[in-house]
Amino acid sequence: MTLRDLIERKRDGGHITAEEWYTFARDVADGKLPDYQVSALLMAIYFRGLDSDETAALTDAMLRSGRTLDFGHLTVGRVDKHSTGGVGDKVSLVLAPLVAACGAAVPMVSGRGLGHTGGTLDKLESIPGFNTRLSLAAAAAQVERLGCVVVGQTGEIAPADRKLYALRDATATVESIPLIAASIMSKKLAEGLTGLVLDVKTGAGAFLRTLDDELRAAQEMIALGRAHGCPVVALLTDMDSPLGVACGNANEVEEAIATLKGGGPADLRELTLRLAAEMLVLAGTAPDHPAARSRLEAAIGDGTALEKFRAMVQAQGGDPRVCDDSARVLPQPALRVPYAAARDGVIQRVEPRAVGMGITAMGGGRTTMEDAIDPSVGFLVAARPGDRVRRGATLATILARDEASAAAGRAALDAAIVIGDGPVVPRPLVSHRVTVAGVEVLG
Amino acid sequence: MTLRDLIERKRDGGHITAEEWYTFARDVADGKLPDYQVSALLMAIYFRGLDSDETAALTDAMLRSGRTLDFGHLTVGRVDKHSTGGVGDKVSLVLAPLVAACGAAVPMVSGRGLGHTGGTLDKLESIPGFNTRLSLAAAAAQVERLGCVVVGQTGEIAPADRKLYALRDATATVESIPLIAASIMSKKLAEGLTGLVLDVKTGAGAFLRTLDDELRAAQEMIALGRAHGCPVVALLTDMDSPLGVACGNANEVEEAIATLKGGGPADLRELTLRLAAEMLVLAGTAPDHPAARSRLEAAIGDGTALEKFRAMVQAQGGDPRVCDDSARVLPQPALRVPYAAARDGVIQRVEPRAVGMGITAMGGGRTTMEDAIDPSVGFLVAARPGDRVRRGATLATILARDEASAAAGRAALDAAIVIGDGPVVPRPLVSHRVTVAGVEVLG
Repeated sequence: MTLRDLIERKRDGGHITAEEWYTFARDVADGKLPDYQVSALLMAIYFRGLDSDETAALTDAMLRSGRTLDFGHLTVGRVDKHSTGGVGDKVSLVLAPLVAACGAAVPMVSGRGLGHTGGTLDKLESIPGFNTRLSLAAAAAQVERLGCVVVGQTGEIAPADRKLYALRDATATVESIPLIAASIMSKKLAEGLTGLVLDVKTGAGAFLRTLDDELRAAQEMIALGRAHGCPVVALLTDMDSPLGVACGNANEVEEAIATLKGGGPADLRELTLRLAAEMLVLAGTAPDHPAARSRLEAAIGDGTALEKFRAMVQAQGGDPRVCDDSARVLPQPALRVPYAAARDGVIQRVEPRAVGMGITAMGGGRTTMEDAIDPSVGFLVAARPGDRVRRGATLATILARDEASAAAGRAALDAAIVIGDGPVVPRPLVSHRVTVAGVEVLG
Repeated sequence: MTLRDLIERKRDGGHITAEEWYTFARDVADGKLPDYQVSALLMAIYFRGLDSDETAALTDAMLRSGRTLDFGHLTVGRVDKHSTGGVGDKVSLVLAPLVAACGAAVPMVSGRGLGHTGGTLDKLESIPGFNTRLSLAAAAAQVERLGCVVVGQTGEIAPADRKLYALRDATATVESIPLIAASIMSKKLAEGLTGLVLDVKTGAGAFLRTLDDELRAAQEMIALGRAHGCPVVALLTDMDSPLGVACGNANEVEEAIATLKGGGPADLRELTLRLAAEMLVLAGTAPDHPAARSRLEAAIGDGTALEKFRAMVQAQGGDPRVCDDSARVLPQPALRVPYAAARDGVIQRVEPRAVGMGITAMGGGRTTMEDAIDPSVGFLVAARPGDRVRRGATLATILARDEASAAAGRAALDAAIVIGDGPVVPRPLVSHRVTVAGVEVLG
């Protein structure tokens, strides 16, 4: 059986066996297959899909193409959260130390920003010295010692997925639900988890475009988790406008620290608590959501969450003084330019894609994985859909490295912030909760 | 506009502009595009198709990626025939000298066998010394001097098509009607033709699988010809069983020569005359089909067609004595093994794919373009669907290089020749004739 035969079979809507997926993933990881055949197979999958057995086999095959963490000797639950990607989404920075402070272990393998979305690794690396490139063994040791770690996908974790993802990105085959589900779960299942929470973004800034696709992606990943004995809960959450106020990198770290101290924007705090509560229940650390919520609020209130963050920063080589005086420790922008409302009215929309692409245009994002980013640039977007504003009122602050960067930021906000006259009905922060039992509509 | 954008647009069913196709074809010819992106685009085209403007633009772009023949200074018409590929199809060997003997010019750029189908170049190269690798300039000079030439697709002709075809073959994207039509026509239009006849094979041994696809392919190519001022006529012809008796390479040359001498199997002679008559009318050499037919039969009867073949063989470096004593000049098989009927009955089928794959298994075909072939092996298949046979009667002769090759040939005929009891209704040799005016059902 050659790869050409597999392409032809998938092209014609046929089924690829588990054994064939294992061979495929191993050969992809080993660099044995011509890219031009792999990309043709990916496009055939884009059109024909994968059935649930194929998705499970591909996930497992990509997982087994690399190494996995084994925390079987730990008595505490190991939980993680994965987000499908948004703008202003610094939840992981708050969540990982917060959940660890409550007694669960969080071995978080995270990603970088690409396109309009930001990445947790880029944000953490704006803390001077912070190292996200730990080996799996070092990451495991830190989880045992501290309860949390945030690292990047090394060559050790699901290398077949790593190579396939790069090819999908170059060949417009990212937006395939079975491929998305298999890619995410092959990495997350490598973390040796006892539970996983998915934050599936919905709305204008979301990667998937319809509620139907979002529910289907959630259900695929729940099924994949179940097949591997890892319970998965998915929340569908609002990404119709950026999360919180800070959008960028260093400024998001600042906002995350404020939230760990009990402040921070209400939407960021609430979403973090909702996701973290799911994690504590999945980890067996709390019996139910109200109990989980109390523990989480206590860990913020008594400073243990912030101390966990400080310990993690220190353990990963970063400057722990970021917790005390973040403005002195983090890179600061050369310019802070206020952005004023051009007219009286009601904020109709704050378009996350325009904000995210604006950060990239200002030098704070990537268009290819090789791009270096400037962590100091970005926006503080105070305006929220539904706010009534007067002409000249400050809606946002542009954090720029020079005048050209500021002009690019201004143009992005002109596109992003729409002022009109009609009232705006706010969207629910969490609209659906999906588990093996089914879909609950919350919003 | 990047190639990734084009892939995404085609994936979503969008339109690629003529200018984008020109850039694409030029960059393909220049080797500037990553194969993995080109193959993803090809698979997206497989699923989404091309509209008629896109097919025309891609054809023209591939044509212009190379050089073309210009016969504008000739007063005689230039005509060619293209077959979609079959087993035992040695029509071109008879047709090119025959039509040239009647006064039209035939600048034939032909192909090699791949899969179960044979190739004109491979057959001609079984004549010792015969050179199919002429430059375009040398081919043009021979057409002016002699009236016909048969050469391979050099790097000069539609190089973008040449590269795309190799990629399509490796990625299961050959079977796309717009890509098939664009590929064939980009090469044929490079010949500077005033008319083209298509032999679209139908039945079990045909490349396309349904009548609907065959008619659509014919109509696409007719439309492409029209856009370039080259009238195209397509005949849909029977490939439910091999054409003629000889299947292989050297033995097909022998049968072609017998046909040029007025003998040869009836189906081969009739199909050649039908296709050649279309060519003479398209060339303006004959006013109508009956007149064309008379001229063609006269050229066979008086020996001028054979003399044209002899002159072409000699001009291209081959041994012209092949016309007089082909058994002495052509490579002969070590073994000639009769194949007998296993039971009394009626021949139900002679399956061309099994015969063609049998030739490959015996060493006379290719599984990759790099394979060398043994021109001496093959079959003489006398049995025809509908023939009533007795157990032990000779149905075919296996031409093999050794016992193993003979055993492979026997196994292929066991699969190919099906004897049953019911009567068989013979299929028409030519079932449909398609022109700009529409489809005539003949069979």
